[in-house]
Amino acid sequence: MSEAEQREWSETRVRVRYAETDQAGVVYHSNFLIWFEVGRVELCRDHGFNYRDMESETETFLPVTEAHVKYRSPARYDDEIIVRTRVIHARTRSVHFAYEVLRASDGRLLAEGETRHIVMNKQGRTKSFPPKYAELMKGAKVSVDK
Amino acid sequence: MSEAEQREWSETRVRVRYAETDQAGVVYHSNFLIWFEVGRVELCRDHGFNYRDMESETETFLPVTEAHVKYRSPARYDDEIIVRTRVIHARTRSVHFAYEVLRASDGRLLAEGETRHIVMNKQGRTKSFPPKYAELMKGAKVSVDK
Amino acid sequence: MSEAEQREWSETRVRVRYAETDQAGVVYHSNFLIWFEVGRVELCRDHGFNYRDMESETETFLPVTEAHVKYRSPARYDDEIIVRTRVIHARTRSVHFAYEVLRASDGRLLAEGETRHIVMNKQGRTKSFPPKYAELMKGAKVSVDK
Amino acid sequence: MSEAEQREWSETRVRVRYAETDQAGVVYHSNFLIWFEVGRVELCRDHGFNYRDMESETETFLPVTEAHVKYRSPARYDDEIIVRTRVIHARTRSVHFAYEVLRASDGRLLAEGETRHIVMNKQGRTKSFPPKYAELMKGAKVSVDK
Repeated sequence: MSEAEQREWSETRVRVRYAETDQAGVVYHSNFLIWFEVGRVELCRDHGFNYRDMESETETFLPVTEAHVKYRSPARYDDEIIVRTRVIHARTRSVHFAYEVLRASDGRLLAEGETRHIVMNKQGRTKSFPPKYAELMKGAKVSVDK
Repeated sequence: MSEAEQREWSETRVRVRYAETDQAGVVYHSNFLIWFEVGRVELCRDHGFNYRDMESETETFLPVTEAHVKYRSPARYDDEIIVRTRVIHARTRSVHFAYEVLRASDGRLLAEGETRHIVMNKQGRTKSFPPKYAELMKGAKVSVDK
Repeated sequence: MSEAEQREWSETRVRVRYAETDQAGVVYHSNFLIWFEVGRVELCRDHGFNYRDMESETETFLPVTEAHVKYRSPARYDDEIIVRTRVIHARTRSVHFAYEVLRASDGRLLAEGETRHIVMNKQGRTKSFPPKYAELMKGAKVSVDK
Repeated sequence: MSEAEQREWSETRVRVRYAETDQAGVVYHSNFLIWFEVGRVELCRDHGFNYRDMESETETFLPVTEAHVKYRSPARYDDEIIVRTRVIHARTRSVHFAYEVLRASDGRLLAEGETRHIVMNKQGRTKSFPPKYAELMKGAKVSVDK
């Protein structure tokens, strides 16, 4: 990975909770989508905006329209997990994120995935990103899409 | 238990999901609170009202102010579970439920508990039950409290 | 859809729980993966085997290696949900499921998706389906793959 | 609170996830039990032992036998939350924890609670704490119980 690309990823960490494991002794697979969401929120914070404020101040929501996860290796209880997130595309009315989930202790890739979102108002109609957030979201885009 | 008391309990069933288990091979304990909620909603339906409608039509919410659970025996993956719910007290501005969780296959008691709720509006202020729902909730009360 | 295809889908129903909603007023998206799992288990039951027994009797696990969900329309609190599941491919060491999630009241498609699984032992090594389960799983396959 | 008592609490922080909210716009109440568990694990770590290692090395489990939560004020999406945990009693075959959950921004108490646990082996029989862990757990006890 080039240095330019590396700068584009936001990183955050979560510790695996007992509640997230299942009786197979590993993290239940739907929890990775929750960790992706943790990653998205921190990416937004890294780029100068708070997802909560966007929602409450501008009644703008980013519902997930598509999610795709490839599970590479199990996550286990009490593991420290790194969630790496980047914006693939930020358009006027949609945004597309990519994720990597790694085990902090040895850097092993546990999962990777993507989510697509549309921009919606409270009534469930598509809308455009509010201008301030459009700029910040585009600033978070990876170089190849600029 | 007297026949009168037995009539006061509402019963509903849930099947244990894989996602609800943890790496100890049993249901993670916080899920019992979610099953209690399933029980409350079905008790309401049994007494002629829909909790969702009350929330959306009258902006009345019933947040939990206190929860107490005693765990007797573990619930396991794919078990069919009976949730028994009754109203202990229904007051103008609060309601108090009791629960029993049993394994359907042998009737074994897995957990019992209680939750207390206050009646609130959307802004988080206490209010009274809307009249229609007050009547229905009082009708659900156990005989001893009438 | 032809009658032959229709026979291949297993159907089960879930009622949306309050705990499954989020502050946008709809079901949080990761819960659809949990409903898919409910669908898989019921498909297995429909074809004469119990996933729990396979796990406990033969130490065979079916971890998810890939999941893909397209979200079409939001699910809401207290909605009755139909989960339709079918086997796309059942191989010696893997299985591939497809899902449709519909709102029971009007048949509206809320989401569709797929999950891929490999057959594993308790130590996390790939293995073949135990013979009995291989037959049953293949019997569940859609006609086009026979 | 005396300085002595203050030293006895372990503190850890969590950030409220979108998945933890419900359609009333606040954190769904069962999640506080999951945060209590996060608090317990960090208290153990603060006192020199890793709950995961105790489980895997000595096949010792600490299932919850009783949980009690009083909800004081709602937690909201993206809030930074402080979980304060202390040991009330540590006995040979049981342990009793207390918790306080506060909003970091203003120190407001959101919930408080207690959980009781017994010491069990993998087969579900009660046992004593392994000696090493017994010492460490007793060391975590509050002064008043020493």
